[in-house]
Amino acid sequence: MSYGTAGKSAASGAWGRALALGGAALVSAAAAAGLVANASHFQRAEMATSVLIPEVREQEGDILDRCKGFMSPPVTDLNELQRRKDEMRTRMEMLIMETQAEFCKALEEVDGGKFKVDRWQRNEGGGGISCVMQDGKVFEKAGVNVSVVSGNLTEEAARQMRSRGKVLKGKDGKLPFVAMGVSSVIHPKNPHIPTVHFNYRYFEVEEEDGSKQWWFGGGTDLTPVYINMEDAVHFHKTLKDACDKHHSQHYANFKKWCDRYFYIRHRGETRGIGGIFFDDLDSPNQEEAFSFVKSCAQTVVPCFLPIVYKHLNDSFTPEEKEWQQVRRGRYVEFNLVYDRGVKFGLATPGSRIESILMSLPLTARWEYMHEPAKGTREADMLQVLRSPKDWV
Amino acid sequence: MSYGTAGKSAASGAWGRALALGGAALVSAAAAAGLVANASHFQRAEMATSVLIPEVREQEGDILDRCKGFMSPPVTDLNELQRRKDEMRTRMEMLIMETQAEFCKALEEVDGGKFKVDRWQRNEGGGGISCVMQDGKVFEKAGVNVSVVSGNLTEEAARQMRSRGKVLKGKDGKLPFVAMGVSSVIHPKNPHIPTVHFNYRYFEVEEEDGSKQWWFGGGTDLTPVYINMEDAVHFHKTLKDACDKHHSQHYANFKKWCDRYFYIRHRGETRGIGGIFFDDLDSPNQEEAFSFVKSCAQTVVPCFLPIVYKHLNDSFTPEEKEWQQVRRGRYVEFNLVYDRGVKFGLATPGSRIESILMSLPLTARWEYMHEPAKGTREADMLQVLRSPKDWV
Repeated sequence: MSYGTAGKSAASGAWGRALALGGAALVSAAAAAGLVANASHFQRAEMATSVLIPEVREQEGDILDRCKGFMSPPVTDLNELQRRKDEMRTRMEMLIMETQAEFCKALEEVDGGKFKVDRWQRNEGGGGISCVMQDGKVFEKAGVNVSVVSGNLTEEAARQMRSRGKVLKGKDGKLPFVAMGVSSVIHPKNPHIPTVHFNYRYFEVEEEDGSKQWWFGGGTDLTPVYINMEDAVHFHKTLKDACDKHHSQHYANFKKWCDRYFYIRHRGETRGIGGIFFDDLDSPNQEEAFSFVKSCAQTVVPCFLPIVYKHLNDSFTPEEKEWQQVRRGRYVEFNLVYDRGVKFGLATPGSRIESILMSLPLTARWEYMHEPAKGTREADMLQVLRSPKDWV
Repeated sequence: MSYGTAGKSAASGAWGRALALGGAALVSAAAAAGLVANASHFQRAEMATSVLIPEVREQEGDILDRCKGFMSPPVTDLNELQRRKDEMRTRMEMLIMETQAEFCKALEEVDGGKFKVDRWQRNEGGGGISCVMQDGKVFEKAGVNVSVVSGNLTEEAARQMRSRGKVLKGKDGKLPFVAMGVSSVIHPKNPHIPTVHFNYRYFEVEEEDGSKQWWFGGGTDLTPVYINMEDAVHFHKTLKDACDKHHSQHYANFKKWCDRYFYIRHRGETRGIGGIFFDDLDSPNQEEAFSFVKSCAQTVVPCFLPIVYKHLNDSFTPEEKEWQQVRRGRYVEFNLVYDRGVKFGLATPGSRIESILMSLPLTARWEYMHEPAKGTREADMLQVLRSPKDWV
């Protein structure tokens, strides 16, 4: 993508985003859960040294060592990962597994509960690992999903890609692809703790001549029930700091893109207070694009967890809980009506529906003609959703 | 429509059904509620005699007399209705207003609560009357909506119509249309009382040469939380009796069409136990088609109210309530992901969103990997949703 078209691309990047979440869905059966014992935090693993390929291992650590900290063995076979350890698809699979583990463990620590871990496979290639904690002490529903799928692009998907300017020539009409990503939605119980969503993904498509097109996509966004200026600024500032390390315009562009993407058109409201969103990222080069995505993925915990801890013991009224439920209804509306990943997943036969729809809250509410009274905190929240603010 | 294509038409009749419910949506503002005093039941009004146009008045009664029983004055001005009292659009508007009133009053009687009545207008022509009762004694959320809208078909709508075989030639690209209907969704509190939905609608489109194309559509269907054979048979038998008065194949064809339409593809489940559904009905002639629609509209109360009274005092467990909430989630999934009327309404700028989404339940629930244990009543329900039964 180029910065000049960032905004426009949000509307046409259907396939990109679709595969992101939809990828989680392209499976035929859910397999039993598998938790890796002796879990260690991934940053520690990252600092491990190596003798084989010093420049890479020094940076990212030994595959086997790093896997010890995951919620489950990676989707791809370990021998395969070691064999092609320098390839981007391996490095990205390791990153999304690490992001899943880091985030799940941080949530488990604050909640006291444990994630249910489901490994599932896809007949056509690949699979995923879904981690879900439901009805915990702090979290109503928390889902963190990894998927790594491969196969051939359908004509429909190829057509959608072409419409956003990617010209792809397949061999006998077939375009082998790899799509992988980590995606998460966390719905806390306390209405003073916001819902958070993030998703980081990578695609490769092989053309007729054997050359590969690749790109990254992703983002992190916050959906509070009530506006808390301090939380909003912390969240956006943390994202901006991560972006600024890579490009001075990343935050401004991806913040706008986020507001545009998470828009509930029929309500005239954004889903939440945004964050960042990007797609089709293939510049300035693969190494730097990956480095940016890595920075983003590593901000997920510092973006969200301080807000959770801060409001952990906030008291709330039944009216505040009800307003949360009404906002949850809007979340369902966005996800079922507009989210391209969900739409793509639901339309794909053989999808793993439970992984696609784990983003839906445990409970939601629809009141006819609900409109908060002027001057209330509920009305303040709506005001922000109706005209997105700049937070930093 | 012809019987031979009834099944296929379900997939291509997007515009027909879209306008049905979406029509309710094509408005710009909600106006204040207006309840007509001295309400009288419409059947009484129907038996009123007349001197002006004996054959019509004898059959359908005097316009002013009949209006006394409505929840609100009709959408169309009374003088206008009287001026064109013999036209189908007048007779249909009177029927949908009567159906709304009859059903609302029957529900008020059993609940003890009162419907909130909102009249709304549409800038481009027409408007609607939305009746909603929320958090009543018996009903969690009950919505009965009438809409009568007119204007010019957009190119998109015209294209959709052509795709199902209706060839329409507009004057300077414009196709004046009238769309009207009554639609209702009732979500009771008690999980032993099913959710019911019905919708009856009529369309007219004027072509370049001044000739009109017209057709009817509609249906009534039941969504229980638990299977009750007696209820299911009563519901389907009442619909079959109404159909059989008009054509021996109506019930069989429209029952199949209903199962096919209310299908949640990503779950592999129907939304409920069906009923009847039809679209594009323009045979054998307008009078007989209207007579059939009238019979259907008049079965709404006898289909549903006996079931409500029967289970009014059924006790239920928290587990039964939770299963109801999970089923409510599926209802939301169908309505937001598949229902053509909702999709059309949400995609139409200036829609009255509250009237479109009043079909959503007050509360719903999504549990990750929810699957009832074998041999339970919940599993029995799922079994029926996964392979629709013949009830009569």
